[in-house]
Amino acid sequence: MGVTITGIGSYIPKGVAPNKDFIENSFFNNDGSKFGQENSVIIEKFQAITGIEERRYLDKKLTTSDMAASAAAIAIEKSGVDPETLDYIIVAHNYGDVKHNSSQSDTVPSIASRVKHLLKIKNPYCVAYDMLFGCPGWVESMIQANAFIKAGMAKKCLVIGAEALSRVIDPHDRDSMIYSDGSGVAVVELLENEDSGIITHKSASYTYDEAHFIFFGESNNQESTDTRRYIKMHGRKIYNFALSYVPDAMKNCLDESGYKITDLKKVLIHQANEKMDEAILKRFYELYDMQMPEGIMPMTIDKLGNSSVATVPTLYDLILSGKLKGHEINKGDIIMFASVGAGMNINAMIYKV
Amino acid sequence: MGVTITGIGSYIPKGVAPNKDFIENSFFNNDGSKFGQENSVIIEKFQAITGIEERRYLDKKLTTSDMAASAAAIAIEKSGVDPETLDYIIVAHNYGDVKHNSSQSDTVPSIASRVKHLLKIKNPYCVAYDMLFGCPGWVESMIQANAFIKAGMAKKCLVIGAEALSRVIDPHDRDSMIYSDGSGVAVVELLENEDSGIITHKSASYTYDEAHFIFFGESNNQESTDTRRYIKMHGRKIYNFALSYVPDAMKNCLDESGYKITDLKKVLIHQANEKMDEAILKRFYELYDMQMPEGIMPMTIDKLGNSSVATVPTLYDLILSGKLKGHEINKGDIIMFASVGAGMNINAMIYKV
Repeated sequence: MGVTITGIGSYIPKGVAPNKDFIENSFFNNDGSKFGQENSVIIEKFQAITGIEERRYLDKKLTTSDMAASAAAIAIEKSGVDPETLDYIIVAHNYGDVKHNSSQSDTVPSIASRVKHLLKIKNPYCVAYDMLFGCPGWVESMIQANAFIKAGMAKKCLVIGAEALSRVIDPHDRDSMIYSDGSGVAVVELLENEDSGIITHKSASYTYDEAHFIFFGESNNQESTDTRRYIKMHGRKIYNFALSYVPDAMKNCLDESGYKITDLKKVLIHQANEKMDEAILKRFYELYDMQMPEGIMPMTIDKLGNSSVATVPTLYDLILSGKLKGHEINKGDIIMFASVGAGMNINAMIYKV
Repeated sequence: MGVTITGIGSYIPKGVAPNKDFIENSFFNNDGSKFGQENSVIIEKFQAITGIEERRYLDKKLTTSDMAASAAAIAIEKSGVDPETLDYIIVAHNYGDVKHNSSQSDTVPSIASRVKHLLKIKNPYCVAYDMLFGCPGWVESMIQANAFIKAGMAKKCLVIGAEALSRVIDPHDRDSMIYSDGSGVAVVELLENEDSGIITHKSASYTYDEAHFIFFGESNNQESTDTRRYIKMHGRKIYNFALSYVPDAMKNCLDESGYKITDLKKVLIHQANEKMDEAILKRFYELYDMQMPEGIMPMTIDKLGNSSVATVPTLYDLILSGKLKGHEINKGDIIMFASVGAGMNINAMIYKV
């Protein structure tokens, strides 16, 4: 018996924004001072650290809930589930629907209600709600779906991560180049006769010192009259935080599962920043006196950037459908999902495919 | 053994806004046409239907998360729980933190992270997340806390409803007079040796035709250059919807509990609109061929307006602390929590005090 992903889908926006699109931007530091470098140098350094060559931006006519509904329709079709039998639709996001050229987040009705409406699901007992948990929201929503199933309140859940960060970025902030748009969705079901699914999970919220490491703040261009607020982060603090806490959380989750480190086939980690993700994985393996195995950590950040809650399910979808060169995941494999982000929140999950 | 509220607190803003404060407003219909009546007549009719004489508005310097943290501190103190032993902080809201004179919702970090930060809770395994489910969010968060406890993932949860609707209202919309600000919070614990707590619950999301009955829309004053969007509703449709579906949901929930209609001591229903709430209760009792008993439905809407997710826990707190004349709830009483709102979502819960 297992709580298992029976279908996965993703929506990757068609709009490609390569790094060169930022060559004319005026970048300022957080303190309002000008960068002492040419944009070409800034962009080169950015790419070296984050691994990001390009990112995806949503079509101007669409919003987060449109991406979510598109990815959800694919996941439902792949799973073969009758959508009218879904017990929950859980949508992890952080900014709601923000229309192109608007500064306002629209969260009423919930994105989950909008998705259910777009999918034309009639069953009123399919409960639709949104949850906000920073970038780890999709993994956390999987944990919530698991809880409802274990509590006997559900058998089938649609678990969605969707975000359009292009709608909340400050053009004067270098960090804006990190962010991307997308959606990834899983159908999760209780399978009575399968030895697959969620094995263990760990979640944590560090808020005492860390609550405002990622925040909503005004433009780095302090001479601007723009009072609009944008997604902002203290990158160095986040890097140190992630390295201090994420590897331990991953280890606790794995150790509790009873599986050995050598059983682990892949780690699907939130695509936040390539160098940071590599440093996390290296430290995780060091906790087992091991070197990080080649190919253990598939990455999409080079082409897809950081689409928040969408990175992990999108990555999983790309691997399962054979679209990520050099990586495959097969039935029976033990894998880990892990994420870190605003809150600051961390989670990890051991999953048997 | 029961999942029981061991402490409840609320934050009722000190700022009283009586109906006469709207006497100078220019009200327009949804279609942009002017009301064909004097404001004094509009306000008188409004009060007759909704029962609202005045509402509460948050201090200009504060936001939703401040109210939530204040109410949470009271609930924690009353319960006697060590806040470091909380497994979850769940915050139901719909618009995040909206600063005075700002049109932007701030949801990163989550309101739950902010509350945990303000409460100075250090334990990282106290997981803090937000959930969006319209006005029924607090009751639904209680259901989620119950699920985590039943699934063995938690023993103690802080369940918060907090909203500052004064920050998202259109001064040209008569419906704006409905909305209010506030927060209500419960500490919920698994009590091994008590015959109390959550007995049954029902939830539903009606989205096929109803998703956009409550929505974010531009000002009713179509001559204004204001492009900001505000909370809007199709009042008549909501009224008919609520009367069609809420009484049945309440009945299903009660019948499943095994208790009889005559066992029910109080129904604590979301304070949306007095006439609507009365019509719902009357129809609920009609389903049992009964007349609605006097005093079954305590109301606070006359003085506190509709503070969304905050109305039900605030009402419960006021009754338990003896602050609502003519109403009391005692140990062993069977009561119902019920709510309806944006989504359109409905829920009900039978609870033994």
